[in-house]
Amino acid sequence: MSAIGVFDSGVGGLTVARELISQLPNENIVYFGDTARVPYGIKSPETVIRFSIENILFLLKQDVKLICVACNTASSFALPVIKNHFRVPIVGVISPGVREAVYATQNKRIGVIGTKGTIKSRTYETEIKQLDSQVKVTAVSCPLFVPFVEEGWLKGEVVLSVAKTYLKPLKDAQVDTVILGCTHYPLLKSVIQEVLGKGVILIDSAKQVAFEVKRILSSEDLLNRGKGGKNKFYVSDNPEWFSSLAERFIGKRLINVKKVDLT
Amino acid sequence: MSAIGVFDSGVGGLTVARELISQLPNENIVYFGDTARVPYGIKSPETVIRFSIENILFLLKQDVKLICVACNTASSFALPVIKNHFRVPIVGVISPGVREAVYATQNKRIGVIGTKGTIKSRTYETEIKQLDSQVKVTAVSCPLFVPFVEEGWLKGEVVLSVAKTYLKPLKDAQVDTVILGCTHYPLLKSVIQEVLGKGVILIDSAKQVAFEVKRILSSEDLLNRGKGGKNKFYVSDNPEWFSSLAERFIGKRLINVKKVDLT
Repeated sequence: MSAIGVFDSGVGGLTVARELISQLPNENIVYFGDTARVPYGIKSPETVIRFSIENILFLLKQDVKLICVACNTASSFALPVIKNHFRVPIVGVISPGVREAVYATQNKRIGVIGTKGTIKSRTYETEIKQLDSQVKVTAVSCPLFVPFVEEGWLKGEVVLSVAKTYLKPLKDAQVDTVILGCTHYPLLKSVIQEVLGKGVILIDSAKQVAFEVKRILSSEDLLNRGKGGKNKFYVSDNPEWFSSLAERFIGKRLINVKKVDLT
Repeated sequence: MSAIGVFDSGVGGLTVARELISQLPNENIVYFGDTARVPYGIKSPETVIRFSIENILFLLKQDVKLICVACNTASSFALPVIKNHFRVPIVGVISPGVREAVYATQNKRIGVIGTKGTIKSRTYETEIKQLDSQVKVTAVSCPLFVPFVEEGWLKGEVVLSVAKTYLKPLKDAQVDTVILGCTHYPLLKSVIQEVLGKGVILIDSAKQVAFEVKRILSSEDLLNRGKGGKNKFYVSDNPEWFSSLAERFIGKRLINVKKVDLT
């Protein structure tokens, strides 16, 4: 039975996989983490596009019926270019978050945080403006957040201090809604909320992405009618490292993570 | 005229290139930074070995007479395996630092800091013990140091606090000498010294690596007899990012950094 393919530069996309498993428990999921070339957030558009295409070709070989780009950097750079190149629908993580944020904001001031690549691409800003040209967008990159999450520094004075520095422009702009534009950031939600204040809505797009996948599969009559989906996890390097981090992202231990060679 | 080839996963190796340029001003240098696949410190031995071989093959095409592996992770994992595979001498960054540290220590307690890969490989420990089996080695990985350096957080409370956490085992072990086992760490020298105290000797192996290169070229009669060497810089991605960071490592602005495709 065809599966939902999901790829990310590494472990971050597991926050999306987790929502897919929760909302679509009867679907098979094939996850690919490009751990040999992680991270994508500091790399150029051309390189991220090339890596994304290679990841998609790998997933297509695994008999997938839809591909979810569970990485904001890849979604920002690659999705606009490759969206219609392949024989299956491709869903990114940008648009679902944008729709929710535009719906949620009251004062029409939205903050966006992400990797350097995501912020530089201005994809969030473009998509928000397309939905509502009145919204004022303040976008900042938070390059130390990913290393902090991967090292397990999820709270404490050090992370709080870094978060205060990064998020100051968002506070100054008095945003009432902030998009967590990187799949790692939901793990820092409590620190980010503490810095921004309780009144600010944090948008974690994983839920919305899973809704979108469900909607497409349903409208194209592609939902699995069997019971109990199976999940497979592949990486391009270091399955042990991936497994050890995975629990933090997907809420359970992953066994049988397989290494594959893309290049 | 044949050049000295230097490679690193990214910009860190420029601290070594800087010393080579200073000590061997008449040599041509070809530097390759594998910025499409940076960092190496979290990746597996097999992957780091594969990347290193690809980098060496690229440098050999540039007519080099010696290759310097200016990356501690690549030196730890790849050098023992590939040292004698190629037609030119290959110099790593581990042994020169080890020799200096064993020479410098008075109380025979040496600390080593590096990436996860470097520390996990135990290459430093093995080489130190080979020189002096009496030395007690305390080795810790400092995974947040590289992101801090690349983001320009070189001092201040946050970095100091992280450094205190990482370096506690070295203080507890009362080491009198510490090897900065990653080419990024010399940029954090003042913070590291502040945490460890003035009495502790910090070994930055770049100088020793350049001595070693000079010694080999001289003994094999390969020194350039012309005047004024030229330097070329190649990367596998993002020449602008590389250039913008380079100044911090090599002390001057780099222009004409060229992007090449390895895979």
